[in-house]
Amino acid sequence: MIRFNCDYGEGAHPKVMQKLADTNFEQTPGYGEDEYCVQAAELIRNECKNNDISVHFIVGGTQTNLIVIASALRTHQGVLSAASGHINVHETGSIEATGHKVLALPDEGGKIKAHQIEKYFLNHIHDESFEHIVQPKMVYISNPTEYGTLYNRDELIAISKVCQQYGLYLFMDGARMGYGLCAEGNDLDLPLITECCDVFYIGGTKVGALFGEAVVIKNDALKQDFRYIIKQRGAMLAKGRLLGLQFIALFEDGLYYEISKHANQLAKRIKTALLEEGYEPFFPSNTNQQFFILPNNLLSKLKEKYSYSTWGKYNDTHSVVRFCTSWATREDAVSALITDIQSYAKNDL
Amino acid sequence: MIRFNCDYGEGAHPKVMQKLADTNFEQTPGYGEDEYCVQAAELIRNECKNNDISVHFIVGGTQTNLIVIASALRTHQGVLSAASGHINVHETGSIEATGHKVLALPDEGGKIKAHQIEKYFLNHIHDESFEHIVQPKMVYISNPTEYGTLYNRDELIAISKVCQQYGLYLFMDGARMGYGLCAEGNDLDLPLITECCDVFYIGGTKVGALFGEAVVIKNDALKQDFRYIIKQRGAMLAKGRLLGLQFIALFEDGLYYEISKHANQLAKRIKTALLEEGYEPFFPSNTNQQFFILPNNLLSKLKEKYSYSTWGKYNDTHSVVRFCTSWATREDAVSALITDIQSYAKNDL
Amino acid sequence: MIRFNCDYGEGAHPKVMQKLADTNFEQTPGYGEDEYCVQAAELIRNECKNNDISVHFIVGGTQTNLIVIASALRTHQGVLSAASGHINVHETGSIEATGHKVLALPDEGGKIKAHQIEKYFLNHIHDESFEHIVQPKMVYISNPTEYGTLYNRDELIAISKVCQQYGLYLFMDGARMGYGLCAEGNDLDLPLITECCDVFYIGGTKVGALFGEAVVIKNDALKQDFRYIIKQRGAMLAKGRLLGLQFIALFEDGLYYEISKHANQLAKRIKTALLEEGYEPFFPSNTNQQFFILPNNLLSKLKEKYSYSTWGKYNDTHSVVRFCTSWATREDAVSALITDIQSYAKNDL
Amino acid sequence: MIRFNCDYGEGAHPKVMQKLADTNFEQTPGYGEDEYCVQAAELIRNECKNNDISVHFIVGGTQTNLIVIASALRTHQGVLSAASGHINVHETGSIEATGHKVLALPDEGGKIKAHQIEKYFLNHIHDESFEHIVQPKMVYISNPTEYGTLYNRDELIAISKVCQQYGLYLFMDGARMGYGLCAEGNDLDLPLITECCDVFYIGGTKVGALFGEAVVIKNDALKQDFRYIIKQRGAMLAKGRLLGLQFIALFEDGLYYEISKHANQLAKRIKTALLEEGYEPFFPSNTNQQFFILPNNLLSKLKEKYSYSTWGKYNDTHSVVRFCTSWATREDAVSALITDIQSYAKNDL
Repeated sequence: MIRFNCDYGEGAHPKVMQKLADTNFEQTPGYGEDEYCVQAAELIRNECKNNDISVHFIVGGTQTNLIVIASALRTHQGVLSAASGHINVHETGSIEATGHKVLALPDEGGKIKAHQIEKYFLNHIHDESFEHIVQPKMVYISNPTEYGTLYNRDELIAISKVCQQYGLYLFMDGARMGYGLCAEGNDLDLPLITECCDVFYIGGTKVGALFGEAVVIKNDALKQDFRYIIKQRGAMLAKGRLLGLQFIALFEDGLYYEISKHANQLAKRIKTALLEEGYEPFFPSNTNQQFFILPNNLLSKLKEKYSYSTWGKYNDTHSVVRFCTSWATREDAVSALITDIQSYAKNDL
Repeated sequence: MIRFNCDYGEGAHPKVMQKLADTNFEQTPGYGEDEYCVQAAELIRNECKNNDISVHFIVGGTQTNLIVIASALRTHQGVLSAASGHINVHETGSIEATGHKVLALPDEGGKIKAHQIEKYFLNHIHDESFEHIVQPKMVYISNPTEYGTLYNRDELIAISKVCQQYGLYLFMDGARMGYGLCAEGNDLDLPLITECCDVFYIGGTKVGALFGEAVVIKNDALKQDFRYIIKQRGAMLAKGRLLGLQFIALFEDGLYYEISKHANQLAKRIKTALLEEGYEPFFPSNTNQQFFILPNNLLSKLKEKYSYSTWGKYNDTHSVVRFCTSWATREDAVSALITDIQSYAKNDL
Repeated sequence: MIRFNCDYGEGAHPKVMQKLADTNFEQTPGYGEDEYCVQAAELIRNECKNNDISVHFIVGGTQTNLIVIASALRTHQGVLSAASGHINVHETGSIEATGHKVLALPDEGGKIKAHQIEKYFLNHIHDESFEHIVQPKMVYISNPTEYGTLYNRDELIAISKVCQQYGLYLFMDGARMGYGLCAEGNDLDLPLITECCDVFYIGGTKVGALFGEAVVIKNDALKQDFRYIIKQRGAMLAKGRLLGLQFIALFEDGLYYEISKHANQLAKRIKTALLEEGYEPFFPSNTNQQFFILPNNLLSKLKEKYSYSTWGKYNDTHSVVRFCTSWATREDAVSALITDIQSYAKNDL
Repeated sequence: MIRFNCDYGEGAHPKVMQKLADTNFEQTPGYGEDEYCVQAAELIRNECKNNDISVHFIVGGTQTNLIVIASALRTHQGVLSAASGHINVHETGSIEATGHKVLALPDEGGKIKAHQIEKYFLNHIHDESFEHIVQPKMVYISNPTEYGTLYNRDELIAISKVCQQYGLYLFMDGARMGYGLCAEGNDLDLPLITECCDVFYIGGTKVGALFGEAVVIKNDALKQDFRYIIKQRGAMLAKGRLLGLQFIALFEDGLYYEISKHANQLAKRIKTALLEEGYEPFFPSNTNQQFFILPNNLLSKLKEKYSYSTWGKYNDTHSVVRFCTSWATREDAVSALITDIQSYAKNDL
């Protein structure tokens, strides 16, 4: 079985593993107060070209989402999200468990637009029963989105302006940030994201680390006491240096970008092969996640040798599925998949 | 200004007020452990023709909703509701504040259907990531709904069967129960509702009382420790007898039904007048709430003398508005409204 | 049975009842946005000699406590309270249910002292693991306390100063405020309390109203969006005017103070009689609650005719009990109790 | 600087690291549904001599505590704990953040006793206001405790019996389980703990792993849907196999016990040296944590070369401090510490 079902099927990039092995017997203070976390934060400040940001390291994405949101909102406030957003669909109500409603906006390919946010906000404040409705106070976007699509520069700036105008915090989930930044056609970079967002994170779990997300907080109001909340939600790793060390490995010499490009290139090979066979993408993506509408008879063949994610039924004969590549995906695995797609396609359709 | 904007614009029915006045100097135990609450519970058990139900009295509807739901669900479970349901839209995220997600289903005129519930449940348990999604465990319906529409016998029984089959609790919000039970064409009654639901409540606030909702719990699993949770959520009225007394007044001689009929009859007069002028109902209702699509120029005239609720913009020239009657609405107020509608309609359109 | 077990055994003062009856058929907007609530708030601003305070009316004390605290604190913050404080002991964990820890300080007769607060705060910020500990951010005191005792001017000012110095909100629970303000030896008044506290409330439920607490918010940071949170916690009374009307009755001509004095005078008669018989107070009180250490054989006689609260076992032969008077307590009821105490005491001991 | 301040100052035991390195490029399903987690669970079932237990792997201790407790309790229920218990003191109110009160019992050296639990429970159910008080439903103990002390067989069985008699869940925090099981004088073992507890965990973070706690659930009522709650609280590690692999390394050949013994032996050397110099233990411990009352002038010397934890001031001249050993502590580090203690003691006192 060759796995294309997700981007967290293997361990970590060898350079990450090496860093952990090299430092294994060193003694450091716990809870992220060690020198490695300091260094890693510094590397990230350099990437963002901003010396005033706070950087914290957290083990996983759901944790990070719930901590950032619970930290920022008062009890009557909610967070706007694409209906397909991870916090709205795939985190078992973790945000609601902290007491906050996720306010879902209809999305296209995982993306929401500045004017939707503005309209929602204005409707809220003009509603005669506004106090009977959750107050929107934060906007959650992910980039890449759940469908591997990307915001562009203009879209992000527009969202940021609306948020600033109406006092909404802008929070970007960057669990797959690397794959987005290194995608063909992408025009975002970390300095711009830092400028536009109040808080965001740079994902490690899906981009070369064993685990770990680097939270970047720009808005001073959100910086205060953040570590208390990390601890309260059970997310303060005792051996916090493990997080710092991994992010050093990822950012000290550009490894993060290099492996992201690798994954995107392999994803492009799969995409190209599927397009050439005449299959339709569910949403067009230049990142490591490729969603396609495929015939069930092709899939029943493929699944004998390959794993993929099933997103849902498309119609009686077709399904929406996802193929994922990662830093760890091998060229020959992709070649085998493509060969089989081509061969099955020829015979079956 | 004559008010048709809601059904809680006045105090209480004179018989309710009299009951409070007559007993004012009596000394009773607090917190609902008095004889009047016992009597009122007994009256409600008679109405429901079920001696095993637990009956509790709570001041308001939002409180009741959040207490029932927080009492029934484990932390990872959510409650299915019509998207337009009160708990999803008009209670400032009170359910989420207890940690639970409201799982919204598309609705028609405020109603959801048995097959929607079944489909949602089956999709959930068959999803490969089911543990990453809130577990549906309760179904919340309201009767009458937010739009004044009603479930019929077959629909309620079908929903109840689905809930029983899949282990879902069925909870009916009956904030306007009286107006539903006494509506033309209604075929529900309290014994059937008791049979079909695990828990429901009979609203007093909008049907003749100063305040108060009578919660009826049939499912034994939901009875345990319910009073702890009433107290925890700040809903255990110190002078609990005030609730018992009001429900005695409403149910000792059929007052609850009598005043509900009164309100429905007046609502029908308004509805008939609007229909005769050619206006379209937003959803057809036989209860005390009438939602109509009315021209803005008519509304701008009406609002000089009458209040109503604005539900939203329909199009550039029309709005959806609600007229409400209640136990307290006077015949002459309705006559005046109708005369004015007829006169404005003649002149303006 | 004559009841001395609590101060919420009867309905409301006749002037309160009259006000409700007089206005019963008036139509007003709901949710506390009526003219009566505006008037009542104005009366309370006058009592407090402060025009900038926000005033809100809430049905009960537990609700009020949890709303004020949930409104003020971020998720990692807690509230300091006397260990015997109502929120720590008698509200079924309502504060914890909003996510916040009650940080209990040892108290004497229900009171905590400025230096305890200061010490706790300084210990916290100097602890090497401070981020692993709930951050103290609010101080909850009640006046009168759970034991009917009172803070004096110097004590309150000292607590207020410590709170201001360290950025802690000071919140006074005044469920029995009237009995405190009218007690012999009291040197507090509402203007001073307003000056010292960030937020407090003036209790109606136990002082002449059917129900109702008037929340006074002085600190601007705590005013914002307070009504959202009232709604979210199920505490926005549909017929909100009932609260405004009752507070008008209590404050338009000094009724609140008059009936408080009445209760205190009757409590003093009971206290004097018990002291004269040689019984010891558990804590000395000049308010409507009298805690005494009484022999069990006396109590077994008394309970045939009178109810009282049992606070706990004192030793094998004695118990701590509470006698409560209220606006409604009759002189002849107190006389009967005293006569019986004197007669039993003579015979039994 | 040689660190004795905690038992999580280094990385992981080399065998653990090797296991991670050996499997790094393997592809497995995520979220703990891989073969390694299955194997690790099987190893733990063998250790516990019980095939019916559920085993789950979670990254850290605070997470584990809050997940187990939030999973088990209804909203009005609380958890009894030693006042010094980790959940009551050092987890930033993580339990309260899930809505539940920690009910603190006075403890001696971190331990609570069966009769305290029984008395608390009986007081609760006999209290006339029992519904106004959090309902005790779970008992949390840790073994070793916060002070390194241990429960013995009789104590644990007595607690377990009380819990069973009154329907309380018994939960043991075993963050340092290995150091307890391998301590001199210990008479507990995993099968007995499994028999006595409804749920407990075996700590990896402090005993040789990079991170990880193995939760063992015996009570069927607590097994249901546990993985939903792991996900909801952000604790479902994407690369879940990392947890399984580490526990395989720890339990496949007794490494867990071997390294625990090592730590205890080194702790004993420190303890013996301190006792020989006449210093007094704060609480006597045979595990890897040694709490002693030491003179401040000795400490000011020691801290130039060694780190330790300061627990608090003992008196004006002495402090309570903790020395910790672990699987990673070196013999020569302990020898150096002892030599210095002996030398300073000679000169300074």
